[in-house]
Amino acid sequence: MATVRGFLYPQTATGRSSLIPSPPWHYSGDLLTVEYRTDPARVAELLPEPLSPAPEDPGAVAIIWADWQSCSESREELLDPVRAQYKECFVVVRCSFEGRTYSRCVYIWVDKDFAIGRGLHQGYPKKLGSIHQTRPHPYGPAPRLEPGARFGATLAAADRRLAEAVVTLREPSETNGFVNGHPMAHHRFLPSIEPGQAPALNELVEAGAAGFEAGQAWKGEAELTLLDAPTEEMSLLTIEEPIGAYYRQVGVVWNGGRRLA
Amino acid sequence: MATVRGFLYPQTATGRSSLIPSPPWHYSGDLLTVEYRTDPARVAELLPEPLSPAPEDPGAVAIIWADWQSCSESREELLDPVRAQYKECFVVVRCSFEGRTYSRCVYIWVDKDFAIGRGLHQGYPKKLGSIHQTRPHPYGPAPRLEPGARFGATLAAADRRLAEAVVTLREPSETNGFVNGHPMAHHRFLPSIEPGQAPALNELVEAGAAGFEAGQAWKGEAELTLLDAPTEEMSLLTIEEPIGAYYRQVGVVWNGGRRLA
Amino acid sequence: MATVRGFLYPQTATGRSSLIPSPPWHYSGDLLTVEYRTDPARVAELLPEPLSPAPEDPGAVAIIWADWQSCSESREELLDPVRAQYKECFVVVRCSFEGRTYSRCVYIWVDKDFAIGRGLHQGYPKKLGSIHQTRPHPYGPAPRLEPGARFGATLAAADRRLAEAVVTLREPSETNGFVNGHPMAHHRFLPSIEPGQAPALNELVEAGAAGFEAGQAWKGEAELTLLDAPTEEMSLLTIEEPIGAYYRQVGVVWNGGRRLA
Amino acid sequence: MATVRGFLYPQTATGRSSLIPSPPWHYSGDLLTVEYRTDPARVAELLPEPLSPAPEDPGAVAIIWADWQSCSESREELLDPVRAQYKECFVVVRCSFEGRTYSRCVYIWVDKDFAIGRGLHQGYPKKLGSIHQTRPHPYGPAPRLEPGARFGATLAAADRRLAEAVVTLREPSETNGFVNGHPMAHHRFLPSIEPGQAPALNELVEAGAAGFEAGQAWKGEAELTLLDAPTEEMSLLTIEEPIGAYYRQVGVVWNGGRRLA
Repeated sequence: MATVRGFLYPQTATGRSSLIPSPPWHYSGDLLTVEYRTDPARVAELLPEPLSPAPEDPGAVAIIWADWQSCSESREELLDPVRAQYKECFVVVRCSFEGRTYSRCVYIWVDKDFAIGRGLHQGYPKKLGSIHQTRPHPYGPAPRLEPGARFGATLAAADRRLAEAVVTLREPSETNGFVNGHPMAHHRFLPSIEPGQAPALNELVEAGAAGFEAGQAWKGEAELTLLDAPTEEMSLLTIEEPIGAYYRQVGVVWNGGRRLA
Repeated sequence: MATVRGFLYPQTATGRSSLIPSPPWHYSGDLLTVEYRTDPARVAELLPEPLSPAPEDPGAVAIIWADWQSCSESREELLDPVRAQYKECFVVVRCSFEGRTYSRCVYIWVDKDFAIGRGLHQGYPKKLGSIHQTRPHPYGPAPRLEPGARFGATLAAADRRLAEAVVTLREPSETNGFVNGHPMAHHRFLPSIEPGQAPALNELVEAGAAGFEAGQAWKGEAELTLLDAPTEEMSLLTIEEPIGAYYRQVGVVWNGGRRLA
Repeated sequence: MATVRGFLYPQTATGRSSLIPSPPWHYSGDLLTVEYRTDPARVAELLPEPLSPAPEDPGAVAIIWADWQSCSESREELLDPVRAQYKECFVVVRCSFEGRTYSRCVYIWVDKDFAIGRGLHQGYPKKLGSIHQTRPHPYGPAPRLEPGARFGATLAAADRRLAEAVVTLREPSETNGFVNGHPMAHHRFLPSIEPGQAPALNELVEAGAAGFEAGQAWKGEAELTLLDAPTEEMSLLTIEEPIGAYYRQVGVVWNGGRRLA
Repeated sequence: MATVRGFLYPQTATGRSSLIPSPPWHYSGDLLTVEYRTDPARVAELLPEPLSPAPEDPGAVAIIWADWQSCSESREELLDPVRAQYKECFVVVRCSFEGRTYSRCVYIWVDKDFAIGRGLHQGYPKKLGSIHQTRPHPYGPAPRLEPGARFGATLAAADRRLAEAVVTLREPSETNGFVNGHPMAHHRFLPSIEPGQAPALNELVEAGAAGFEAGQAWKGEAELTLLDAPTEEMSLLTIEEPIGAYYRQVGVVWNGGRRLA
């Protein structure tokens, strides 16, 4: 009998066809983050057991746009950039497990299949979307990183716009926000192939960055609009109180995590 | 603590955001099938334990293009067709398990995220691709279903063309081919979040159609070309001997399966 | 000096690179048409001189979704269907010129560049969009062509949904509507490369089908919603009175027209 | 009778629907340029009268990848970046007209319709394509701007890859190459709507940047591969002798040109 290889499907004799190579995965990217407070009940209802709401500021939400270049240990994807570049928009809340505070991604859209594949492993609930964010640039009309600089960011899925933001930067910042600042606590879930049976997989995992470097963060404020759609519920996380908005360039390494429950 | 719902991720209080609703899933579609024989060793190396090669004709391969409209029990997706329509190209071989012959999809590309989500449940190793196939039409230059009718079909992924076929129909057919005619035996696989540990999920499942209706099949022959790419191995299934080509319209219901191992 | 060839740009020594080959162009397609009356002033303001509003029913509008397979005289595009298939959604009104009534496309979105190229020649004001329409199918959940059959149709551009329709068929129909039933009167327009100068091209052309065949038309009614967007004005054509909705399969040949003014 | 407005089609009472607003147009972008020499006869055959080959180095070719953010005078597109961002890959040669040397774009692919619209005005022969290029980044695995930095760039159209390059930077450079350094001499061409008649438009126009700023250019060398396709001829511009490769960030203003012939 054959031995098949590959970090994810499809597995073959060589492993070369796998939708994603094995970690570590390396990322260079630009993050545009909008933080606000919603009704804490809207966050709590997204936290299945054994998670509970964060003890402080339980209604805090971050919506993050990210423009990535990513690769495996070989770096080869960077030279065939259709295999390295992707954009994403994701919604993060905080939660508590065994007395520790975690970040948790409750909604996320990406624009490439390899990013969906990594999300399966990491527990990010990825759908496809169309994601755009203004990039800073030193020449021409695009914004410089300076007070008053303005960045747009949008998300659409299934031909419907779901979110729009305009961020205005004010000054350098000590932080890039606080909602997405903890290790992630995610469920990995797959139903049983047999109707009515217990899930085939339903585990709680923890993961964080194995490496991180970043430039100067900037902060400011955002105008944010969330739009309804038949198969989406992001707009239920209504904007009750703005917190702030941030821009930062980062380099990240991801290399696995551990099972919590 | 909250109860979250949803057949797949993301799970929420209502379940409305799930990438896919629960089965049964209903499909209307057009299939263009090309069958041929490759070196049986190329098939065998794609069959992990406890599977073994099919006892007869173990090098038979089917490459199938399908143009689908699909929906859940509510049928609502059909009226918002961006959520119902998708195309796919997939490669099927046969294998043996406990004395029975199964079909098995070894490679597959689709063009929508909800199709990826259904594939996670069913064990289809889905990537994104760009898939096209000629459709029959009663008026104008597109082919009628008649002797001599010619249909083109192509597959690309990551901006590279991977497969091209031109099918010429000759006559009505008793069958739509034989390679994809058995229940499917698929692995559902997810690595451990902890490097070096055993997979979190690695199960063999069986599933077939819970309902099936179909029109008259047609048969003919195909010119088929498979092209190489850095992250694909479909072209290793070299075309040693053509078998035939088929066109058929079908209606399918899928409603779960059972675990084999 | 060289002679360059090609029906449209880019012109080369062989003409092979042209975005579109020369007419005649052949089409097989399915049309879903929604007709209604808007404020006639909204139509009149879209009719530049020397056009004037149609003498009868000047507020009539047709919004048409079409799912096409198209090709040149060689038919070769049909066997490489990424070069043949496209979808479009377009808005047609009627107008008058020298005592004759014409149809006129005032807005149109397509999903392929070769369709944009043909539109440049024909005077259709084509933008890119994402267009979907339910297709009838003889098996599974998709609708048959029968009383009560329901078809959805949607249009989006720049990640915003612009139009949605659900058409319910009632019975066979003598016609496929009347708004798009005349020869087309279109302007072909290009500004001068020199700011402030008269247009380089601004001509009124007439064109119609050089060949036409069609199946049984069906009629019914539609729910239609038009949505606003920053760079679109289709929603100004407000729905004041529904007229009807139609489904028809057609074959069309287009082979040039004549200059009117 | 109505007066319609709009820089390009569709023209309406307000002009708001125009595929593109009027110039000036502003651009921020990153250019990756590969220069080489081909057989001068392959360039000459792409130069229709009244153009002739450049007197010096008539076989020089530049293939340029560009990653743009662009906007009109209002800058509003920058805050809705799906309307501002696009990528392109284009092929430039040089030619001579009335004793002056011009640059001329002979092939170009873009990924947005507003870029096609601007090309109609400027005389760029734009098709749709899928274009990717590695971006420099200060953190993580993406390259810094430094000796040895490597950038990939790819082009595909109609699901076929057409060009691939890997550029390795060596040192800062006085120039960003020389092939694309002249004012552009382009034809604007539209056939007559009447078969067999003279073109409705066939004019030679000149245009260059109305404003330009740029960062330090870098030079190095490239591995470049051009691939054949049924409707493309870029690969006829065979690579006979490499010249060099360049990276530069630029800001550009475009504001019309003048008619040459």
